[in-house]
Amino acid sequence: MQSLVELYQVKANPPSLADNTGDLDRLKKSLSGILKDKNPVVPYARIAPVAEAFRHSGFKGYAVVVHHPTGPQLIDFFAEAPEFLVGMALDLGTTHLEASLVNLLSGTVLARAAEENGQLEFGADILARIHFASTKVGDRSGLDLLHERVIESIHKLAVELVGRLKLKTSDIVALSVSGNTTMAHFFLKQNPYHLCREPYIPVVNAPDPLQAFELGLDLHPAAVVWVMPSIGSYFGGDLISGILASGLDQQDKTCMLIDVGTNAEVVVGNHDWLIACAGAAGPALEGGVAKMGMRAGIGAIEHCSIDPESGKFVYQTIGGTPARGICGSGVIDLVAGLYLARIIDIRGKFRPKQPQAAGRVIEQKDGPAYIVVPADEAHEGRPILLSQVDIDALMRSKAAMYSILTTITNQVGVAFKDLYHIYVAGAFGEHISPRQAIVLGMLPDLPLEVYRPLGNSSLAGAEMMLSDALARERCRKVAAKITYVELNVNQEFMIRFSGSRFIPHTDHALFPSVPFHGES
Amino acid sequence: MQSLVELYQVKANPPSLADNTGDLDRLKKSLSGILKDKNPVVPYARIAPVAEAFRHSGFKGYAVVVHHPTGPQLIDFFAEAPEFLVGMALDLGTTHLEASLVNLLSGTVLARAAEENGQLEFGADILARIHFASTKVGDRSGLDLLHERVIESIHKLAVELVGRLKLKTSDIVALSVSGNTTMAHFFLKQNPYHLCREPYIPVVNAPDPLQAFELGLDLHPAAVVWVMPSIGSYFGGDLISGILASGLDQQDKTCMLIDVGTNAEVVVGNHDWLIACAGAAGPALEGGVAKMGMRAGIGAIEHCSIDPESGKFVYQTIGGTPARGICGSGVIDLVAGLYLARIIDIRGKFRPKQPQAAGRVIEQKDGPAYIVVPADEAHEGRPILLSQVDIDALMRSKAAMYSILTTITNQVGVAFKDLYHIYVAGAFGEHISPRQAIVLGMLPDLPLEVYRPLGNSSLAGAEMMLSDALARERCRKVAAKITYVELNVNQEFMIRFSGSRFIPHTDHALFPSVPFHGES
Repeated sequence: MQSLVELYQVKANPPSLADNTGDLDRLKKSLSGILKDKNPVVPYARIAPVAEAFRHSGFKGYAVVVHHPTGPQLIDFFAEAPEFLVGMALDLGTTHLEASLVNLLSGTVLARAAEENGQLEFGADILARIHFASTKVGDRSGLDLLHERVIESIHKLAVELVGRLKLKTSDIVALSVSGNTTMAHFFLKQNPYHLCREPYIPVVNAPDPLQAFELGLDLHPAAVVWVMPSIGSYFGGDLISGILASGLDQQDKTCMLIDVGTNAEVVVGNHDWLIACAGAAGPALEGGVAKMGMRAGIGAIEHCSIDPESGKFVYQTIGGTPARGICGSGVIDLVAGLYLARIIDIRGKFRPKQPQAAGRVIEQKDGPAYIVVPADEAHEGRPILLSQVDIDALMRSKAAMYSILTTITNQVGVAFKDLYHIYVAGAFGEHISPRQAIVLGMLPDLPLEVYRPLGNSSLAGAEMMLSDALARERCRKVAAKITYVELNVNQEFMIRFSGSRFIPHTDHALFPSVPFHGES
Repeated sequence: MQSLVELYQVKANPPSLADNTGDLDRLKKSLSGILKDKNPVVPYARIAPVAEAFRHSGFKGYAVVVHHPTGPQLIDFFAEAPEFLVGMALDLGTTHLEASLVNLLSGTVLARAAEENGQLEFGADILARIHFASTKVGDRSGLDLLHERVIESIHKLAVELVGRLKLKTSDIVALSVSGNTTMAHFFLKQNPYHLCREPYIPVVNAPDPLQAFELGLDLHPAAVVWVMPSIGSYFGGDLISGILASGLDQQDKTCMLIDVGTNAEVVVGNHDWLIACAGAAGPALEGGVAKMGMRAGIGAIEHCSIDPESGKFVYQTIGGTPARGICGSGVIDLVAGLYLARIIDIRGKFRPKQPQAAGRVIEQKDGPAYIVVPADEAHEGRPILLSQVDIDALMRSKAAMYSILTTITNQVGVAFKDLYHIYVAGAFGEHISPRQAIVLGMLPDLPLEVYRPLGNSSLAGAEMMLSDALARERCRKVAAKITYVELNVNQEFMIRFSGSRFIPHTDHALFPSVPFHGES
């Protein structure tokens, strides 16, 4: 469990006429004994402060060493052992950043915090931001601004985290970052132009560790930044984090990992092999498409059900407050419920005059809509509706998701029933009911215990990078052995997609546990 | 003969949907095949330009790789093979800088230039500058100014050198620097305070390679700076250069290296062992003490002789111009000649009324002086005199030099006659007549063919660092195995020094070839 940055106790003989080694050379020599003859290097800017601290402390104390892939790097020296040596782990999400402060001496998480991604102002989604990156704002490029803004957001998080422990941002000696490929490009100020253009090539997938100041990040003057490698434009470091956090790369039995963010990303594999793909399935599932859709947060309808006989609608919001909107898991529950109560048909279309929908389906300009929460019950009196347009969007998303899952398992000749576990990452995994997703035909019809929520595995992976050398080694191996299948041009995927645009599926035999409500 | 920076031809497959490796990852992968699986790292600031150049050139061309001790570093990419890949070698002298531009593709020196050290304004000698470093000038430290000034001098040299080849300073991808320990401290902006205070400890002897921009040097944006390691405060990288240039560390037979600069530095050894020491012997020998003393340059009396019978004085100046002063080699010839003509005695004191000195010895306020060049022959009509004070200084210097040589050989039990070669570095080695130095008792009484001038071995060593991996490895080994003897506190040295303050020596048997002109 070697941390990315560690503390080594050093005690050297003081200099004398008989031993005129330079101060820094003396410290390096002492350290190289401890580090098993690996000679630490010292970045230029740290020569003076480290040598002076070593001399000032009487040639004994604690050396701060970064374990770079190319060898150890000596960046600081303390006379006394500090209580904490802190690193910051960061999940660099498109909409939100989540971060934790990790005590590198123990691997313990000391604090967690979240912050909106300041880039939202320049574009809600990734494509909008990629476009913005190549525009000019005054004498600055959009990329410049996107980079600056995300660095500001990270800095805010850092300030908040260290504040809770009465530390300073300059105490943070390491930052590990896990995010999708586009976010990593913005973070590193790299041109994202080719990310969304065939053949979808990143500038860099696996950057070498760099220093925080090079990005304009004001942490420890020699703080190391470790960026989780990406595999391709649509398969980012956040997924590598998911693989590490789920242990997919160490499993004897074949498992699957599903991460639904802006895209749906899927990995199948075990300790011998890993195959991955990604596809556009996300927005509706993340609550980003439905008019009343929102991220899983206070006031979001997280779960709901409709009694198939009476049509009675029951829901619960996150935090138990009046409903403000409906998040991905709520939409899935809702549409599954609408289907089971026969309010919508297998194509996801509202059936006319269905008794269970009495009084809840209204006609709008763009078609019928279901009143989820009437105005008098909702937050600020704004009723929550689910329109035909919203359901259509969800139908496309769920069809895409199921098609992705079948295409990738088919590529490696694995049947769904052979999957030992299906890990579901992120807020999506935490909130959805796999049962309702099965009803919709979005997830395969497997026993519910196969499904395992992972939580924020992007953040968990970033934390592992900070505190565990084995995880850093695994990360390198995973990135080297994973096979990525490009679905955007996959014929099989397009055929499967068409067959999946029904509830649960045109081939009902694939979903034996789901009641079939075909036209009767 | 691997250069510090090399060019590698790369040809990668262009990206496709089936091969979505990132641009930079693709280049690194191609390179690591060529570099025998050593993975090159890319400094953060070079990711964007290198990846873009690689893409722009159609994924083939020439990669620029720095061979760092920790592994290869990829810093640039060219579509076409350049005619030159240039590095700058620098002899960082206290008074003068000398530099050459080396074609790293061939190891050829393309141009050489020299420049006064801009620090002279802040102090003529090293001690004055060390003192100045700790003063404040406005809101800046003396160290800041010394650093800035030497960087300016180096920049001037760089501009001059690249100008001759119609290149730009940004074409210089490497700089190797060889200088004494104090100059290296100023160059690296390190506090020199302890260099001149017992026990004389440098901040750093062997800095890791750094980047030019970190020093404010405007070369290639990722130009590497390689600083020749020092051994101690009084034994700098210029001497390591001397060892490399003379090949002392590779000799079967024991040899000696003498470098007279601000101090006299001496190394004795062979391929098995190396021992070194340094002592204050220099100023008089470098032409820095005698009132009319000057560095070996246009108008300096380089050689002279006095007919022992007639007292006739003959001299030659560098460039054949009217005499402006007298340099170290001239002073040695002159004092040896004064002794052989019995104008001075074995203590170096003017004998009264010596016929050979007729008309040439005058009385001044501070004692007698010898008219070397009368006013009407000299440059700008200023006569050149050598006073008793000047001779006394030379006597101390020559005594120090001989004491250093005997002390160090004694330490290792080597007799002078066992030395295969005595290499004499620098201007001193180029200009002095070993014979006259023997007459004075400054150098041991050995056959003249034992003495070998080395030229500017500090610059030669720096050039070797740029173009030869073996030399870089030798440099590391030399620094690791050399034993440094501190003479400033050596009792034996002090005793020997007293015995050496006569011409040639109190023990005349040590100098059988030199006529003895004791009181008769």
